[in-house]
Formats: sequence, C-alpha cells, structure tokens
Amino acid sequence: MSRTVYVNGEYLPEEEARVSVFDRGFLFADGVYEVTSVLDGRLIDFPGHAERLSRSLRELEMESPVTDEQLLDIHRELVRVNGIEEGMVYLQVTRGVADRDFAWGAEGEPTIVLFTQSKPGLADNPKAREGMKVISIADRRWGRRDIKTVQLLYPSMAKMAARKAGADDAWMVEDGFVTEGTSNNAYIVTGGRIVTRHLGEEILHGITRAAVLRVARDLQMEVEERPFTLEEARAADEAFVTSASTFVMPVVEIDGASVGEGRPGPVAARLREVYLDEMRAAAI
Amino acid sequence: MSRTVYVNGEYLPEEEARVSVFDRGFLFADGVYEVTSVLDGRLIDFPGHAERLSRSLRELEMESPVTDEQLLDIHRELVRVNGIEEGMVYLQVTRGVADRDFAWGAEGEPTIVLFTQSKPGLADNPKAREGMKVISIADRRWGRRDIKTVQLLYPSMAKMAARKAGADDAWMVEDGFVTEGTSNNAYIVTGGRIVTRHLGEEILHGITRAAVLRVARDLQMEVEERPFTLEEARAADEAFVTSASTFVMPVVEIDGASVGEGRPGPVAARLREVYLDEMRAAAI
Repeated sequence: MSRTVYVNGEYLPEEEARVSVFDRGFLFADGVYEVTSVLDGRLIDFPGHAERLSRSLRELEMESPVTDEQLLDIHRELVRVNGIEEGMVYLQVTRGVADRDFAWGAEGEPTIVLFTQSKPGLADNPKAREGMKVISIADRRWGRRDIKTVQLLYPSMAKMAARKAGADDAWMVEDGFVTEGTSNNAYIVTGGRIVTRHLGEEILHGITRAAVLRVARDLQMEVEERPFTLEEARAADEAFVTSASTFVMPVVEIDGASVGEGRPGPVAARLREVYLDEMRAAAI
Repeated sequence: MSRTVYVNGEYLPEEEARVSVFDRGFLFADGVYEVTSVLDGRLIDFPGHAERLSRSLRELEMESPVTDEQLLDIHRELVRVNGIEEGMVYLQVTRGVADRDFAWGAEGEPTIVLFTQSKPGLADNPKAREGMKVISIADRRWGRRDIKTVQLLYPSMAKMAARKAGADDAWMVEDGFVTEGTSNNAYIVTGGRIVTRHLGEEILHGITRAAVLRVARDLQMEVEERPFTLEEARAADEAFVTSASTFVMPVVEIDGASVGEGRPGPVAARLREVYLDEMRAAAI
C-alpha cells in the first residue's frame, strides 16, 4: 500500500510526492530536517524537534512555512492516515525553488515535505539487548554540525564503511576526540560518570541527548560534558549512543575491541528504560 | 517561455521537471554535478566535464546512468531546443530513489537531471574589465572538495556573506592558506609567476583550471602550484579566479584592499583571451 506523503500543503500518494529539480534542497543541500519517533501511535518529544527546527531555520536565515501547531497537525494526520504504531515522521524544509544561483533571493516559498516510516519493533529492538559494534573514522563533515542540514553524504559514507567492516555504525573522530556517531550522539561511562561531548558547532544538539541527560541527572547519575578520546572509550565501563530513532543504544565494541565486558551495561539499560517510560507518558 | 529540462530519459517542460522526495539527492545531498558553458551555441570543454563526472561518480561508488556519448547528445539537444547561444548546461546525477536510510543498497537507478541557463553576454562580461571584489572567509566545508557534490550550502552562505559585504565573492581560507573561491579556483601573480593551490582533497579539480594552466605554460608563463596566504595575495601584482562559467576573471580587491594597481592585470587578461579563443575553436 502506498504511503501518504505531505508536500507543500497537499497529502499525496508517495508516487506523486515530488519536488522541482530547481528546489534548492536538491541543487544545494539548502535544507534542514527533523525525525520524530512514533510509539503507540503518538509522537515522542515533538516540542523538542519543533524547537530545534526553528533554530536550524534561524541559523540559515530561512522562513518556516508553517506554525508549530500546523506542524503538529500534519505529523498527527500522517501518523493517522498511514496507520503508524511504531516508526518515524521525517520532516524537511528547504529554501524553496529558484533558478540555480549560489546566492539566494526572495524568490519563493520554502518547500516542506513530511513522510512516515513504519518500524514495528522500534522500542523492543533486539540491538538494545545485543549492543552495537562501531568503527572509528575521521570526521570530515562541514563545520556547522549543530545545524541539522541535509548535507548527509559523509555520514552516509561512514555508515557504509561501518557496514563493510561488519559493524553497525561509525564514531567520528576529530583532533583526537570523538565527535559523535553518524546519526547519534556518543557517550561513555567511566569513573562512575557519564561522559559525552559538550555542545558546540562540532556536534548535533541531540533532542534525545537533552532528554537522556535530564533523565540521568534525575536518577542522580553524574554527567560530565566534555570531549573524550577513543582510548578512553575503549577503556570505559560502558559506551552507548542516543538518537530519536534508537533512543539509548549500547555500544559493546569499538574497532573490534570490547568495551567493558563486551555486553550492554546497566547505565545504558537503565537510561533506556526510564527514557522510554517518560517519553511514552509524555507522547502526544 | 518554459525551458525544456531533461529528467531520467524524458524531455519535459520545466514546470513538470520533478524528482521524488525520496531521491537521495534531496534527502542526503548524495549526488554530483557538472556545469558546462555554451558559447556560440556550442559546448566548452565537454570532454573535461564528462571525465570529471566519471571521477566523482567513481569516488562515491555510483553508477553512471548514461554513456559519455548519450550525455553529449542530451547536452546538445537541450542547447538546441532551448536556443542557447551563450549560457550553461547544468547536469546532476544522484544515487537515486530509496526509502530513507543512511546506508544505501542496490535499490534503484541513479537519477539524472539536466537543464540549461541562458546567459547572454557570458563571454563579453563587463566584470572581466572591472574585476571582482572578494572577501575572505573561513573554509568550513567538508573534507572531500575534490568530489563535485551538491553539498553546496556553505559556499552559498559564503557567497551571501560576500554580497552583504558589498563584494562579488569570497575566498575561503583554511590553516592560513587560501583554498579557493565559492565556485572557482583562486590564483595570484607574484614574483613573475602564476601561483595557484596544488590539487588535493582540499579543492575542486577545476576543468577550467587545467585548461588555463595549460594555456599559461603554452604562453611560456611560469606556474607554481602551491598554497598561498591572504597576505601574499594582497601583496601580489594580480589576482584572478577561473571557473567554467566565468572563464578567467580578475580579482582587484581582497577584504577592501586593492590588489596591485586595483585594476585587472595583463596576465589575467591574456589568459582569458587565449583560453576563450582556444575553447571556442575546440567547442563541440
């Protein structure tokens, strides 16, 4: 059955969901996105994603084509018509359609596209019990990773490199320190503390990161926001990642070497459990 | 009058020239491009662009959807039906359409799009007589600038910063050395030599760069391929850029300071003249 996709005010069968070849999202990667998870047919942390979308747009001097209320309505309508119980809603806003020119003008309206992906078993993911294997790779992305743009070719290449190496994902390393995973924030548990890189232009300001750190502090866990090295990670008691679609996911191997006991650890498991409980309760 | 645009085997009115919202070019900037100039209704250095396209595709492990001969036929047909005397043919190939996933599979055919832009006065550009003003800006692009991908948001932002500063373009600077302009290679003339950055992953391997350096050597000009600083550039006798759509274009001001006499210099003028003569003669 064909999905229904939202494009610039219209709900369309996915085969008809298209954008102009002159869209700056297609020609210049001049667009931003968000991915919101759906559990029990409801949206997880929608306000966090809406707020980050506004920030991304502001950083690129782009207009939002819709209000937060309209955005919520579109999300809910797509979840409803596509019958999504567990999965994701993907949202992309681009600067719109114009004849090709590096400089942009006031030519047109932004383009807005939303679609769903059904992912049964998103919460009860066996990977959360097994743990993920990651490789390390140089971080060669652009300098403004805090803006959630569609310039995702390098993370895609890193993900493919991981797959070829028999791993699940890659941790990117810059100037000797881990920045983040290809589509998730990275953490270690060492010396009784959760360590994750501080916010800055070097990493995405994860919505799940913010929520998980809040949960950790509520649980009286100590959190240290600072860069860490691969060596520290390999010697850590635990490692894990967070993202909107994987929640909290243990990492049990880095470049072929086990982290801790080589099994998912208690900190990641506890954070995942409490995060999911709280988010399900607050879902809209 | 509506342009005719080529999309995946079809010649379409531009209003109907669209791609799926699931195209990886739109979602991941997973695509490469070329821009070939047209003078006198003929293509400038088509073989150079076709060869670089093959290289870009190879670097990204993408298939070419067409042969070089088919590509040439499409270019010529678009030039013909759109009546382009002076202008450009833009070409983009993406990895194709697939449900959104950072990892790619063998899902579909690559997407290929070509369109034209009419630019009367492209060769007889008044800017070539006045010279361009540039500002300097940090180079914050990704690490593989030798692959001509559509990840062009940062160069677009740099171009906008230049416009806001009353300049024409920006020269990007990394680790103290000029890499290149937003969509062109950068040169200075100093100590009787033409100096331009050597090839590597830090800059685009300009088709026009290769041709202009060949012309310079044929003219017995000395060429030195090495990085140069902004300080060197400001103290140089001349500065200029090259690209497929501006050919050889003098730079007369950097960050508000005049280069040399603050007027286009003889080296750039001579290179532009001979380059254009040779390219017109070899155009197909």
